[in-house]
Amino acid sequence: MQRMIQRVSFIGAGNLASHLIPALLDAGVQVMEVFSRTGVSAARLASTRNIPSGKFPAAINPQSQAVVIAVSDDAVPQVLGALGKTIRILIHTSGSIPASVLGAFSPEYGVIYPLQTFTRNRLLDFRQIPLFIEGSTGSTLEAIRQLAGKISDHVTEADSEVRLSLHVAAVFASNFQNHLYRIAGDILKRNGLSIYALESLIRETMEKSLEMGPENAQTGPAVRNDRRVIEKHLGFLGHDAGRKEIYRLLSDDIIRTKNRKDTS
Amino acid sequence: MQRMIQRVSFIGAGNLASHLIPALLDAGVQVMEVFSRTGVSAARLASTRNIPSGKFPAAINPQSQAVVIAVSDDAVPQVLGALGKTIRILIHTSGSIPASVLGAFSPEYGVIYPLQTFTRNRLLDFRQIPLFIEGSTGSTLEAIRQLAGKISDHVTEADSEVRLSLHVAAVFASNFQNHLYRIAGDILKRNGLSIYALESLIRETMEKSLEMGPENAQTGPAVRNDRRVIEKHLGFLGHDAGRKEIYRLLSDDIIRTKNRKDTS
Repeated sequence: MQRMIQRVSFIGAGNLASHLIPALLDAGVQVMEVFSRTGVSAARLASTRNIPSGKFPAAINPQSQAVVIAVSDDAVPQVLGALGKTIRILIHTSGSIPASVLGAFSPEYGVIYPLQTFTRNRLLDFRQIPLFIEGSTGSTLEAIRQLAGKISDHVTEADSEVRLSLHVAAVFASNFQNHLYRIAGDILKRNGLSIYALESLIRETMEKSLEMGPENAQTGPAVRNDRRVIEKHLGFLGHDAGRKEIYRLLSDDIIRTKNRKDTS
Repeated sequence: MQRMIQRVSFIGAGNLASHLIPALLDAGVQVMEVFSRTGVSAARLASTRNIPSGKFPAAINPQSQAVVIAVSDDAVPQVLGALGKTIRILIHTSGSIPASVLGAFSPEYGVIYPLQTFTRNRLLDFRQIPLFIEGSTGSTLEAIRQLAGKISDHVTEADSEVRLSLHVAAVFASNFQNHLYRIAGDILKRNGLSIYALESLIRETMEKSLEMGPENAQTGPAVRNDRRVIEKHLGFLGHDAGRKEIYRLLSDDIIRTKNRKDTS
């Protein structure tokens, strides 16, 4: 018979935990407690759903079958050091940390990596979020698969290497995408306009790219290798060396990518 | 009484013309003829709507009240040179070319700059596309405003400097955005995945950015200044110096932008 994870403890009370904990609770999983470094964000998150909270390091509730570590990547090593060895299932949620780092702390471990951008207080349909999972043993993987399946319709097994590639790709397609909007907004602000002047363009670019594939959807001066426009735009950005360099590098990469395609 | 532009000739039969000509025809404007460099793309475009087409340079139909130049930016000077002086209204459609370059060829000139990404055979609702217009005289501007208003609900006057800023911003928010999707797709392809693994993330990033403003929507390793993850990702991209540099530059700019905000 398959062992199920019914009771979990959370270390971390940030953007991800603020979406993951309510999703688990709504699916009938008991969240025994939530910890954060100072206890402040844990208390804020826990108060909305009436669960115990505290400051980590702390003793984990002996009833918990699994510990979910939902802290930023650079805090994972110190959380593990403070947690020490355990016989519970250890689960981290990071895109870029191999599952194996958990091996020194428990024989049963794995990963639930949600491929989404999380911001507190923003409503998301968790069932639509792709979860990429990994487990140290067959039965651990099945227990994690069952837990993940309670909250999402899109659960896929992926090893640490595939997960890293998803995370790097997500940084380009999400974090950097958002920053390009930021740069565009900054440019427009100097002329009394805002990013909303570009809303229809932004939406169409995304829809077109997803429908045709980005390799068929590229337009603009770089893909036409229109050096005159590129130089004019670099001149416009003249005051800002960093963003000028971003413009130049991305344009060069569009041209290089096109040539690669044309000769293939 | 306001003079109206009822009959136009087109030079250029590319992505923009393939959307602009049908929109004008559907609004009751007569498109007298369409020209392209070799005549091939003009013939293809004209055949669908039964309008005369040809090879440019050519004599413009004397009935035309305006000539719309819808060619790539770097072809505009040679089109103007071949067109020569005219008493018709000259209209270009470029984001980055000042209206004033038209002044040597006609006293009445202006710009209709559609802020959208155009790809042939892709259905667009032209009424939703923002058009930024300019005119050399009050009456020219009014004639252009009336023409633009026949095909779009979003007509705004903008001088050449504002238009240039819109175009530079659009390159970041559209052309470069699409290229980031391309890079993400390339990374995933190496691991047997595709850009569609990121679809839910891409949609949420865009919606969040437009709702909260990109400056409040930023997530990811760079805005957390998580150097360990950034170094791991740079290592993952190790084989590709160009894209590694794009990752590094965009991350640095996110960190720099955040610090600017924090200290302001």
